[in-house]
Amino acid sequence: MAVNLLPPVAEQLLEVKGIRLATASAGIKKPGRQDVVLIDIAEGSHTAAVYTRNAFCAAPVILCREHQQQAAPRYLLINSGNANAGTGEQGMQAARQSCQAVAALAGVNPESVLPFSTGVIGQQLPVEKIETALPSAFANLTADNWFAAAKAIMTTDTIAKARSVQCELNGQTITLTGIAKGSGMIRPDMATMLSYIATDAAIRQPMLDQLLRQSMEQSFNRITVDGDTSTNDACVLIATGKAGNAEINSLDSTEAQIFSQALNDLSRYLAQAIVRDGEGATKFISIAVHGGADAAECRQVAYTIAHSPLVKTALFASDPNWGRILAAVGRSGLDNMDLSKINIALDEVQIVAGGQPATDYTEARGQAVMDQSEITIHVSLGRGNAEDLVWTCDFSYDYVKINAEYRT
Amino acid sequence: MAVNLLPPVAEQLLEVKGIRLATASAGIKKPGRQDVVLIDIAEGSHTAAVYTRNAFCAAPVILCREHQQQAAPRYLLINSGNANAGTGEQGMQAARQSCQAVAALAGVNPESVLPFSTGVIGQQLPVEKIETALPSAFANLTADNWFAAAKAIMTTDTIAKARSVQCELNGQTITLTGIAKGSGMIRPDMATMLSYIATDAAIRQPMLDQLLRQSMEQSFNRITVDGDTSTNDACVLIATGKAGNAEINSLDSTEAQIFSQALNDLSRYLAQAIVRDGEGATKFISIAVHGGADAAECRQVAYTIAHSPLVKTALFASDPNWGRILAAVGRSGLDNMDLSKINIALDEVQIVAGGQPATDYTEARGQAVMDQSEITIHVSLGRGNAEDLVWTCDFSYDYVKINAEYRT
Repeated sequence: MAVNLLPPVAEQLLEVKGIRLATASAGIKKPGRQDVVLIDIAEGSHTAAVYTRNAFCAAPVILCREHQQQAAPRYLLINSGNANAGTGEQGMQAARQSCQAVAALAGVNPESVLPFSTGVIGQQLPVEKIETALPSAFANLTADNWFAAAKAIMTTDTIAKARSVQCELNGQTITLTGIAKGSGMIRPDMATMLSYIATDAAIRQPMLDQLLRQSMEQSFNRITVDGDTSTNDACVLIATGKAGNAEINSLDSTEAQIFSQALNDLSRYLAQAIVRDGEGATKFISIAVHGGADAAECRQVAYTIAHSPLVKTALFASDPNWGRILAAVGRSGLDNMDLSKINIALDEVQIVAGGQPATDYTEARGQAVMDQSEITIHVSLGRGNAEDLVWTCDFSYDYVKINAEYRT
Repeated sequence: MAVNLLPPVAEQLLEVKGIRLATASAGIKKPGRQDVVLIDIAEGSHTAAVYTRNAFCAAPVILCREHQQQAAPRYLLINSGNANAGTGEQGMQAARQSCQAVAALAGVNPESVLPFSTGVIGQQLPVEKIETALPSAFANLTADNWFAAAKAIMTTDTIAKARSVQCELNGQTITLTGIAKGSGMIRPDMATMLSYIATDAAIRQPMLDQLLRQSMEQSFNRITVDGDTSTNDACVLIATGKAGNAEINSLDSTEAQIFSQALNDLSRYLAQAIVRDGEGATKFISIAVHGGADAAECRQVAYTIAHSPLVKTALFASDPNWGRILAAVGRSGLDNMDLSKINIALDEVQIVAGGQPATDYTEARGQAVMDQSEITIHVSLGRGNAEDLVWTCDFSYDYVKINAEYRT
């Protein structure tokens, strides 16, 4: 039921020199399902990562932050089916144990391994099952396993999310391939549920960090499904440096700008794919707020609309009940809002002009836009020149169904 | 489908000396339905009112605020089926016209009339229909019409909300009778959708205002169904002074305390009735947050849980998926939260102790609580001695259904 989102085609996912991947079946939640991903990163690569801002982040997130301080990552170990969150000291030990198991098989330090988990919160991670599955994962590491990895990290996702883009730096072709997962508990704060992007470009720290954060701001930090920030959000960007380009050494360089645009295209695609595959989604909604005093207040208004259950159910019903949009803007918490300056449009159809029903608005024109599967809600505040944009989906019976039955 | 809420019994609603009510059918949304309420307030009464903090409040709310500055209210005119919100200058004129019509028939100034509307946002109010219905309303004013009034102000409510309480002041029996409506777009900010409470006690301004605000804080400002603050919230408290008690002249007096308790009982009953009849509600949930540095942060955490679609759908499914509660606390935005101090319990069953799964917690014990129709979620933050409480309901298929089909 994803909105205008096709599954990735395995053959269109490009290998990234210096990256090998494998999946394995540990039987964490369902027997037989591929639920473990191992990513092997060539020595000499640089890695940047951002994690959830949820104050109660999961055990693997805590350990990732710790390990990143100590060593350059050589392996990423990801499991689906269990988030290892809310699991206390036992959960921390399980995460450590999983890293040690990878390290022993690979002959590296445990600090070179970053662990990631996604799935049910509050149940202990069956780490022995993961350990048992690891030898098979090591035996199957290949460069062309991106599609299998994208499928193995899914939870309530209905479609795998993966894409490759290329750009040219100084005559060298640069490849970026990324995967992501996420469908519910989506309101990322610095990162999404889980996303891994690798490139063969040569980019050092702290540039890689800056490029990642910049790109997150334009993609994963612009989406919401249900306003619930996950305990396990993580996004990782790996630069193996195997493409042979001259190392990017300034954010202002033409090369950095070219790469940044390719990275933004990829991460925006992945972020929007999460919304298109949002739990129960039937519509993909862009909320563009213009005319704010600053971008922050535009985003505040956009998120208030995006999180309104009344707006989201009206979108599901294709009902141009725009009064709910106006009411959401009104409760968004900005000081001194002036209703007489508010304009609202659905795509090109103006519905509110100067705080009043637009004179040429008709229910038929609103209905025509609402019947579409992709809609942009434009709100103009008349307070300044700033603008911002958020992507979300509607709220359907299936959202309730998926989340009422999640653990059954 | 309201949760443990019985309809009021007409005979148990007590008359309030100095108050007469009538309903009439204007055919605003559905032909034949009683959709207009007129309340006649005896001369010499005092009236306090609080209104929505939504920045884009409806035309009648703007006019109420204006009229209250100018004269003591003698008539309240309420219609359901149309909110007269987002209707611009035409909506203001319609609200003025309705007050003028009442004033002409009653022989009072238009400023003595307070108008209230509830229903669809963004459609012009058919004020002529209301004018046509007014003579019949005036002809039917009686003191025993509280039940009919409670029914006439309903929109998506499935059960009318009304109650009477009594207390004794200096040997005089004091009566308070109140009605309320509201089911969706419920996250009041200083007031609920619509509530009218009258007493025959003698209480002057500004005491009446203070008593109303204090009572709101303990009732209507503690509830949420969907987090959407309405454009039309209003709560009115009328004191006719006909009971013969000595006028209450200090908030610290025993009489003020007795009256305040009776008022709090009544307004809490009405506020909880709105949650029990929340759109699609199958469970009534109290969220008690303890151990905060101040009450405001306790309320912030409580509302984050109360607004989480994931928590609300788990409650609907009777699934003790407490990880979602923990995740909501974690994203509630408090600085420096310490996971190791967090305790969570469902009623008497502790599920999280010191940030970890409680050792004696079993899924069976959690399930037993979750199967109930009334549940208290206790969260302890370990940051101080403040506490606060919020009431909400779960999130069901029927919420989506009701709001997807609202205008059809």
